[in-house]
Amino acid sequence: MNTKIESLGKRTIPNPTKSGDYLSENAVVTFETMFADSKMVGPHFQKQPTLLEQAGALEKIYFDPRWVSAGIVTCGGLCPGINDVIRVLVMELHYHYGVRRILGFRYGYQGLVKSYGHHPHELTPDSVDDIQHMGGTILSSSRGPQDPGEMLDYLQECGINILFCIGGDGTLRGALAIHEEAKRRGQKIAVIGIPKTIDNDIYMVQKTFGFSTAFSKSLEAVTCAHTEAKGTYNGIGLVKLMGRHSGFIAANTALASGDANFVLIPEQDFDLEGEGAFLPLLKQRLLARKHAVIIVAEGAGQKYVTTTGTDASGNTRLGNIGLFLKEKIIEYFKKEKVPASLKYIDPSYIIRSVPANPDDSVFCRFLAQYAVHAGMAGKTGMLVGMWNNIFTHVPIELATSQRKVLNPETNKLWQAVIESTGQPFSMKDRSS
Amino acid sequence: MNTKIESLGKRTIPNPTKSGDYLSENAVVTFETMFADSKMVGPHFQKQPTLLEQAGALEKIYFDPRWVSAGIVTCGGLCPGINDVIRVLVMELHYHYGVRRILGFRYGYQGLVKSYGHHPHELTPDSVDDIQHMGGTILSSSRGPQDPGEMLDYLQECGINILFCIGGDGTLRGALAIHEEAKRRGQKIAVIGIPKTIDNDIYMVQKTFGFSTAFSKSLEAVTCAHTEAKGTYNGIGLVKLMGRHSGFIAANTALASGDANFVLIPEQDFDLEGEGAFLPLLKQRLLARKHAVIIVAEGAGQKYVTTTGTDASGNTRLGNIGLFLKEKIIEYFKKEKVPASLKYIDPSYIIRSVPANPDDSVFCRFLAQYAVHAGMAGKTGMLVGMWNNIFTHVPIELATSQRKVLNPETNKLWQAVIESTGQPFSMKDRSS
Amino acid sequence: MNTKIESLGKRTIPNPTKSGDYLSENAVVTFETMFADSKMVGPHFQKQPTLLEQAGALEKIYFDPRWVSAGIVTCGGLCPGINDVIRVLVMELHYHYGVRRILGFRYGYQGLVKSYGHHPHELTPDSVDDIQHMGGTILSSSRGPQDPGEMLDYLQECGINILFCIGGDGTLRGALAIHEEAKRRGQKIAVIGIPKTIDNDIYMVQKTFGFSTAFSKSLEAVTCAHTEAKGTYNGIGLVKLMGRHSGFIAANTALASGDANFVLIPEQDFDLEGEGAFLPLLKQRLLARKHAVIIVAEGAGQKYVTTTGTDASGNTRLGNIGLFLKEKIIEYFKKEKVPASLKYIDPSYIIRSVPANPDDSVFCRFLAQYAVHAGMAGKTGMLVGMWNNIFTHVPIELATSQRKVLNPETNKLWQAVIESTGQPFSMKDRSS
Amino acid sequence: MNTKIESLGKRTIPNPTKSGDYLSENAVVTFETMFADSKMVGPHFQKQPTLLEQAGALEKIYFDPRWVSAGIVTCGGLCPGINDVIRVLVMELHYHYGVRRILGFRYGYQGLVKSYGHHPHELTPDSVDDIQHMGGTILSSSRGPQDPGEMLDYLQECGINILFCIGGDGTLRGALAIHEEAKRRGQKIAVIGIPKTIDNDIYMVQKTFGFSTAFSKSLEAVTCAHTEAKGTYNGIGLVKLMGRHSGFIAANTALASGDANFVLIPEQDFDLEGEGAFLPLLKQRLLARKHAVIIVAEGAGQKYVTTTGTDASGNTRLGNIGLFLKEKIIEYFKKEKVPASLKYIDPSYIIRSVPANPDDSVFCRFLAQYAVHAGMAGKTGMLVGMWNNIFTHVPIELATSQRKVLNPETNKLWQAVIESTGQPFSMKDRSS
Repeated sequence: MNTKIESLGKRTIPNPTKSGDYLSENAVVTFETMFADSKMVGPHFQKQPTLLEQAGALEKIYFDPRWVSAGIVTCGGLCPGINDVIRVLVMELHYHYGVRRILGFRYGYQGLVKSYGHHPHELTPDSVDDIQHMGGTILSSSRGPQDPGEMLDYLQECGINILFCIGGDGTLRGALAIHEEAKRRGQKIAVIGIPKTIDNDIYMVQKTFGFSTAFSKSLEAVTCAHTEAKGTYNGIGLVKLMGRHSGFIAANTALASGDANFVLIPEQDFDLEGEGAFLPLLKQRLLARKHAVIIVAEGAGQKYVTTTGTDASGNTRLGNIGLFLKEKIIEYFKKEKVPASLKYIDPSYIIRSVPANPDDSVFCRFLAQYAVHAGMAGKTGMLVGMWNNIFTHVPIELATSQRKVLNPETNKLWQAVIESTGQPFSMKDRSS
Repeated sequence: MNTKIESLGKRTIPNPTKSGDYLSENAVVTFETMFADSKMVGPHFQKQPTLLEQAGALEKIYFDPRWVSAGIVTCGGLCPGINDVIRVLVMELHYHYGVRRILGFRYGYQGLVKSYGHHPHELTPDSVDDIQHMGGTILSSSRGPQDPGEMLDYLQECGINILFCIGGDGTLRGALAIHEEAKRRGQKIAVIGIPKTIDNDIYMVQKTFGFSTAFSKSLEAVTCAHTEAKGTYNGIGLVKLMGRHSGFIAANTALASGDANFVLIPEQDFDLEGEGAFLPLLKQRLLARKHAVIIVAEGAGQKYVTTTGTDASGNTRLGNIGLFLKEKIIEYFKKEKVPASLKYIDPSYIIRSVPANPDDSVFCRFLAQYAVHAGMAGKTGMLVGMWNNIFTHVPIELATSQRKVLNPETNKLWQAVIESTGQPFSMKDRSS
Repeated sequence: MNTKIESLGKRTIPNPTKSGDYLSENAVVTFETMFADSKMVGPHFQKQPTLLEQAGALEKIYFDPRWVSAGIVTCGGLCPGINDVIRVLVMELHYHYGVRRILGFRYGYQGLVKSYGHHPHELTPDSVDDIQHMGGTILSSSRGPQDPGEMLDYLQECGINILFCIGGDGTLRGALAIHEEAKRRGQKIAVIGIPKTIDNDIYMVQKTFGFSTAFSKSLEAVTCAHTEAKGTYNGIGLVKLMGRHSGFIAANTALASGDANFVLIPEQDFDLEGEGAFLPLLKQRLLARKHAVIIVAEGAGQKYVTTTGTDASGNTRLGNIGLFLKEKIIEYFKKEKVPASLKYIDPSYIIRSVPANPDDSVFCRFLAQYAVHAGMAGKTGMLVGMWNNIFTHVPIELATSQRKVLNPETNKLWQAVIESTGQPFSMKDRSS
Repeated sequence: MNTKIESLGKRTIPNPTKSGDYLSENAVVTFETMFADSKMVGPHFQKQPTLLEQAGALEKIYFDPRWVSAGIVTCGGLCPGINDVIRVLVMELHYHYGVRRILGFRYGYQGLVKSYGHHPHELTPDSVDDIQHMGGTILSSSRGPQDPGEMLDYLQECGINILFCIGGDGTLRGALAIHEEAKRRGQKIAVIGIPKTIDNDIYMVQKTFGFSTAFSKSLEAVTCAHTEAKGTYNGIGLVKLMGRHSGFIAANTALASGDANFVLIPEQDFDLEGEGAFLPLLKQRLLARKHAVIIVAEGAGQKYVTTTGTDASGNTRLGNIGLFLKEKIIEYFKKEKVPASLKYIDPSYIIRSVPANPDDSVFCRFLAQYAVHAGMAGKTGMLVGMWNNIFTHVPIELATSQRKVLNPETNKLWQAVIESTGQPFSMKDRSS
């Protein structure tokens, strides 16, 4: 696995930040830390461990701050904390490195294509003051790729030598394309990604910013669903949460709540009817306890619903499993002649367009500070991530090579969900 | 207008609460307070004002607390503050009047019909301690009327002499039916209503509990919609809020926000297309400002959508104007070849199943304290309301005789919405 | 009582807002609405009622919007909602009346005195966008009076014809002084006050903005005190809340909480020791229930503590009754040999520097809209208030003639507190 | 370093939870993960790494659930999440292992001493339902040690074979004493600690529950201090936060805020006056920016204040550095003739008696689930911790051997604080 970070060249400029404790150039974090047997670890470590580069300020940097023009762009869907990241990028560049020109490109990668006519804004400590109290992104966003050559042309015209790309999978691929085209052209631009995905599904990255806020807001919906379920005879609360390919939001929300009885996620197939399947289990729960709460991730049970093309980012438009389940459950209990009352809650964008909570704000601050350190050091084609609670540099190519998912068989989070909900590990039809 | 409150009989028992300042038996509140001209008021008041009975503790009460068994029942949809009301009813009956037997009937009026088999719970200060921190109702609820005779039979069997009915329009009609049947039978039971409606649409009642909490939670959805709208080029945030017949939630949310550009309510008809109609105005706004926020009350624009029967409470199942508008708007901008991105948010039950905010908690406390004073005084067939900020008694018959709506022509709330949003007073098609 | 509002002159300019439903020039609100006997009201009303002028948009206005320069100044301590008021003043002046020059004077009345050198800021819809999400005041504030002549000189130099003064008692007196000096000079400037006091103690004004937010935040401290009290054996939670002369915050917080056992306010004297006094009652409560919660308003029990001069606003620096009680209680239980553990919480500024809650935001919007209507109509020497839930104009002279306090003998709020806490009406030493 | 966990005996009972994926008996986590040079890691690892035992469900357990009586006790100060832990302990014991007798001992270790007469409560899923929505501990707490022999006597009398001790340093020492006395007596009781400290200062434990909630609440105070500081000319906001020996709360709050200009912590000495010392730097900041925000941890600058004995837990009663600084700063600016206005905020218990936030709730769930797994497996004398984001078992003896502090020289958190605030690394008087 190639975890090596590319660099624009030799670092010769003394770091002006005088922070005292600079990171050594070869500082690393071990990827593996859990071992099934203590004998597997030791002076005669059997296997070369995977090592990730640590993030941090280096004693010598590549760029002379006086000549740096930095650019910031935000792409894809909203996520709590984007404004925190923008703000700290600006503060850190301005106050710690003395960078005096920072451009905010508007409307995502569209803003890097001159013909769209979205002129960049100059960002200063004053203009970003207090923006962290608002959700969303002051730079606005857009979906979909743009031509890397056109973007590089405009970046060159604007004199940008460090570009910070805040976005998800597609954005990171776009950043990689810019980086590769720049290499081809010999254009010395540091491209630094800051991964943003509400679903927390970036490979080699322990967690992404905004996730804590997102599942915390999701909890409110589940608490309401529980209240509604208990507020009537045989009440059922059904909540649909974000999570296109991974159940991290659904699982964490369920664990925080303790009130969910069923959690359905993309990583775990389930059947509706038949022995041991979802609907009979739901009936059993309802008869026993007179109320039930179900969390379904939007990407779960897609075998049951029709997808409808793709959006501008190239993401499949998922079928609406929430509404599907709502209808199916109502129909099933009618058929079974069990009185039941279902309340459906879809908090949708409410969980992602709120401001970051304090945990996420701290996290965003670290990401942005380390992104600036990396950019000033001339690192490129990389993103700032975290592993084993240590901030790291990860090659974008590696991070976009696959998607992080929750493996229900071995994942401790999922195991805790099973323990918490009491749902069986499998809800497949055993009768067939 | 008959504002006279019925009474079970002579009040002869000294009030044990020793609160010092008892209300005089004939204390009243004037209904009208605003006059277009100061000459209309004065010693030679031209018109007999409408007077409502003030709520409060009386020096003599009807029931001997030692022999009182009180019942509490909660009906209809959830609303923030029900648990606050239940808690204070119990505390006040127990600590101030020394009532020792309080039964909580479960699952709404079903719990008053013996054959359902929902046994009532004994409520004590301990059992209701801390319930105010949770949304919903610890007694659970149900929709739909039950036979007044059967309910009275069971109330008699349980020995109830004061019944507190917490619920909306339908519940109050049910309470009235119980009261009338009791009168017919000569059964001495005080029936006290505490109006509960998230829509704030009870006639002769200035505001209902939970409303402040509900629109406050609604504001979060509108703030998110605004963030989403600004987060993309030509972004539109569309929020559907509760309000079947009245736009109070939508209007207050819009005023609290200041970010809404269009508010659509049941009381004000609008057209979609044509000169001066909604969609062309929306386009105009979008072209000028690149983003727009729309709030639509669930009962607005029903001429455009199909209703589908009635629910157990007899309420018409409204057509989904939110989803309808979402499709219409997307279609319209496609037709007009204006790029636009719409985000639809329906917070649904999230606004009503949360705990009461502090304002509502204070309000619930007053309602419950006054309900207990009224019940102990032998008043009946009445509800506790508020007018001109004074707590009042209102005959249920009067309160249910019509529904309070927002008159767009004269209502100051609506006028403020027009000023705040900048939307024209009328969005009717002027071209036809 | 003189409730008449002064006016700069004849209103001849048509109101450009086209809001449709203009207020009639003589519209009034009756002050009294409660009567101990229904016979006291009627066509032969015995007494001329007090009438307050209604607030609202008039069909003709005094100022031609093209030549209006408006000024805004915020004085005294912070209060939730100041930024809401500033924002709506600017929005309403700009969008509804087309006023193009709005100056924000900085640092309170200091900003109106040229020699301080605090230059005013130009306020525009863009510069006030989103400020309502932040507590405090974007204009900053200061305490203490300034010379009215100097202030008028600078206002004239800046060309201001409408001045909005947001502040408390002292600020309103300052506004009155400016108004009177202007009259003397024949300077045509409309001086409009918007009363701001966290203590809710302005005479003839039902409630002031920020109060709902302030007591809601206070509730958090009381809930924590309750949790701490129950978290240990014989735990006592003692919370000091704002309220220099009036117990409105303390009383409302107690009612919202339901967990307070003692509420001490400035309006009600109490003794510490002796029969029926506070400390023996506290001991009795503790022995019975093993925990107790006390709320003390900062202005309560001042006979026990030493005041230390006055602040810049001329307010007496109160003695710290909270710390005094803390020591006294600890000492008393030591003396009585009752183990007890006291936790003291003083949320101080936390309750006032937060953003307005949605209820206060709506309220601020109305105040600001009506303030603009009044100013454009050439009204002056007045403030915008509320009575019987109707927005009103009140002469500043009348409003500052005395302070609104809570009369414990008759006040319904206080009666509800007595019922809720179970504390006796009087805690005076009966043994002496 | 001895990281070995003691065990009561052989595990022979099949785990009834059927969770599928049991942990292997020797599963470990490496303690070290960061290396200054990649050459230090590899197949020929130079140094034997420290290994911690992983937490998790084992295939065979020690106790037969049918005969298990579990005890739960909570000691020391409150912390967000205690009720979450209690609830999940009960749920997990009841539903997953089928344990039918769970006793909650009241008032901390006092409840384990019979002579105090605090009878334990039987805990059931019903009795702990919804307790996570309230702060504090339903079992109440107390400070101070009790005799291990007396506690073991009563535990034996109550038939307890697994004891869960939720508490901080002192509690863990008490748990160790119980464990050691039990070993001496040959009493087969599993003693499992769940570390609770608002200060996050337990050795070998990455984070403790409630910390996220506590610093999140602290942020509110800092935001208010910032608002107050900006609300007046040369405003200074001073906030005192918890943190007796460590600056974790102060540091995290500062990072989440981004508005703090000075952070003073116990681990970093500072001088008040002289070149490069705190007060001159504060003056410099104020003159440059007209406002400043200071966070001081309660244990900082203790050289300046007098301590006053110890509390029941044996903790030194710290001098009040917050009030000291407040006076000093006011005095200094008076002396320097710089007008300045200081607002002091001490949120005190407000940050610790609130309910856990969703992140902490998830964390508490894991801790409690793993504590139950460990107890049922017969592990003892250990606590459940976390390291490198993996839940671990740590011998109590090791965890209490020293205190975790923030080393300002090398700590990345502190480095980020320095970058964020702009304060110099050292504020020692350089003139002397």
